[in-house]
Amino acid sequence: MANDMRQSTVLAIDTSGPVAGCAVLTGGRIAHVVAMNHGLTHSETIMPAVDEALSAAGLACGDVDVFAAVAGPGSFTGVRIGVCTVKGLAHAVGKPCAAVHALEALAMNFYGFDGLCCPILDARRGQVYCAAFDMSGGMPVRALEDAAQPLPDFLARLPEDRRLVFVGDGVPVHGEAVRARLGRRALIAPENLRDLRADAACVLAAARPESWVPAAALRPIYLRAPQAVRERERKMNGQN
Amino acid sequence: MANDMRQSTVLAIDTSGPVAGCAVLTGGRIAHVVAMNHGLTHSETIMPAVDEALSAAGLACGDVDVFAAVAGPGSFTGVRIGVCTVKGLAHAVGKPCAAVHALEALAMNFYGFDGLCCPILDARRGQVYCAAFDMSGGMPVRALEDAAQPLPDFLARLPEDRRLVFVGDGVPVHGEAVRARLGRRALIAPENLRDLRADAACVLAAARPESWVPAAALRPIYLRAPQAVRERERKMNGQN
Repeated sequence: MANDMRQSTVLAIDTSGPVAGCAVLTGGRIAHVVAMNHGLTHSETIMPAVDEALSAAGLACGDVDVFAAVAGPGSFTGVRIGVCTVKGLAHAVGKPCAAVHALEALAMNFYGFDGLCCPILDARRGQVYCAAFDMSGGMPVRALEDAAQPLPDFLARLPEDRRLVFVGDGVPVHGEAVRARLGRRALIAPENLRDLRADAACVLAAARPESWVPAAALRPIYLRAPQAVRERERKMNGQN
Repeated sequence: MANDMRQSTVLAIDTSGPVAGCAVLTGGRIAHVVAMNHGLTHSETIMPAVDEALSAAGLACGDVDVFAAVAGPGSFTGVRIGVCTVKGLAHAVGKPCAAVHALEALAMNFYGFDGLCCPILDARRGQVYCAAFDMSGGMPVRALEDAAQPLPDFLARLPEDRRLVFVGDGVPVHGEAVRARLGRRALIAPENLRDLRADAACVLAAARPESWVPAAALRPIYLRAPQAVRERERKMNGQN
């Protein structure tokens, strides 16, 4: 029913990181979810995945109440692919969009965890995209603002009196450093809960109808300027 | 590497409940996972899903180190489909199998939860398949034995001094009753963590190489005799 947002039909797409994913929430259940981490080009894999998810769930685009994109932070190109795909789908059938925050969607893997969930994404250049969410009440509650910074700087920002769990594609790279620094207070997500899943994006979008916007208003979430812009600014400042 | 079991390549299949799922763990990451909850016949959907998962991950059956089936408790027919499919694949390429417990795989959705994870599956006839696992150390540690029993009997077995989280396909049916009885001490899994995911079965199978058996030795996990057997016994006892 349109008035009960938890019963909304949501299609979510995530191409913001190494995993390409797509999920459909309808009738209060995840009808379909797929996550692919094959090193393939997201622009080639995502539309067939959307087609399959909708047709397997017996839905057409017009049946979707809101189209959600994981809008970053993440890979610049990946974020663009997800946001543009969702804009196109939503515009075609005149339905709203929702921008889901990648770090918050990752935190949804640890709903109810009695402490902070700390997503870390590989941001290259020696940095991670990072944040922290208090999960003890169930849904994520922001505890630390987003940042793009070196891992040790992020670890220094974390409170010392809480349990912590680390998720995201930064875990395979930085998991050992986290353990070495924080010891047993830090839990590392197992493989099945490490990566962003589009079904988490569906749940967040359904829970927050106030965040729904027209297709034209959907915006990527960037924590840094794209490399091309940084290069140009460096040149303009005579630092090249 | 074959000697590092966490780096094993695992194909897992789940057809034990309403969701049909398939996942591939390889190189320490979930390369592919799909979960379908469409009310379609699992026997028709699962093999195409296996084909797609392996080919998308660039793998052939012979590259898989162990084939895991979610072996129950669950639907009798569904469990048979999963176990037989995995037996066939493993036998064909001479690789071992692993029987993953459905309730334990569900508990993997709450890795690290500071309390007990309580999976409840709709077992019909007014019963749930149920158990409880202590998740506070990360991986599931058995806290209550499996049972097929009415929900109130299960709730009466649960300790009063622990946080509890309920997962599984029994949640949509019994979630309100759980809340009414246990109040805020009981958390109900959100949609993205409610159902069994085959990637959790991959992680469990990889973590327990001592459970790997030859294909011929793979057995379903049943908590009750199938209805046909119960009917026959009732007739033999003159109760029909």
